[in-house]
Amino acid sequence: MFKKRENVLEIEEGNLLSPKFDNDGLIPVITMCSQTKEILMHGYMNVEALKKTIETKEAHYYSRSRKAIWHKGKTSGFTQKVTEIRIDDDQDCVWLRVDVKGGASCHVGYRSCFYRSIPIDRDNSKVVLQFEEKEKVFDPEEVYKGAPNPTKL
Amino acid sequence: MFKKRENVLEIEEGNLLSPKFDNDGLIPVITMCSQTKEILMHGYMNVEALKKTIETKEAHYYSRSRKAIWHKGKTSGFTQKVTEIRIDDDQDCVWLRVDVKGGASCHVGYRSCFYRSIPIDRDNSKVVLQFEEKEKVFDPEEVYKGAPNPTKL
Repeated sequence: MFKKRENVLEIEEGNLLSPKFDNDGLIPVITMCSQTKEILMHGYMNVEALKKTIETKEAHYYSRSRKAIWHKGKTSGFTQKVTEIRIDDDQDCVWLRVDVKGGASCHVGYRSCFYRSIPIDRDNSKVVLQFEEKEKVFDPEEVYKGAPNPTKL
Repeated sequence: MFKKRENVLEIEEGNLLSPKFDNDGLIPVITMCSQTKEILMHGYMNVEALKKTIETKEAHYYSRSRKAIWHKGKTSGFTQKVTEIRIDDDQDCVWLRVDVKGGASCHVGYRSCFYRSIPIDRDNSKVVLQFEEKEKVFDPEEVYKGAPNPTKL
């Protein structure tokens, strides 16, 4: 399914898929809600996850905390139906547009993982984050039932 | 400007900025066009680039190919005026909304770096990328005048 990366012109201007996986075998993925156009999450795929995503049209990632393929929504029920896949100029990043069953993508319970903003119109010597989502869409305690939190210090 | 990462609850649910930089000192950045909501590029920031972006409201990245701070648009003129900055749940990814002077963000000449899609509604044994932008916005030869291409095999 993937063509070997052999020359820059082909990678940038050609029509063959030659994704670049980093030293850990991963490629970053931006996931956007098809409806609202907001960014839901930023994740990573390995070769298998990218192939599975293309083949099944459901988003698969690689979980760096669990070190395993991660069929998004398998635990929570919030699967992501892929409506478009884009690849960037040097083919080292993927952009997915998805429809989310249930409407949430964040393990903390919010719709988007990006539920806080860094205010830019004030004195920034001390940054105070602003919550852009006021309420959680689901209760993570209930949905994940004691599964380890993927957030690492 | 940044608070030390000390506990997960504070990172996820708190209002202090505690960005996580990876082993190379970088945090990934998703850059979206404020107007069209399309993804323009995916880049990286180091501590200095994130601080400069917050302070100046113009996007600064870290160029992995040049190993240097990169004030986007300094060469091409296509600076990115930041209209919103978001941070994700575990604070290891930044999402910028920007207005682009000149309307282009891709070193190949297109408006967005993500000018090609991976078709999902056909037999995917051989993927043929589809161009979603038909024409370049600028001529990179003219704008970058022989500067080395950042794309790596």
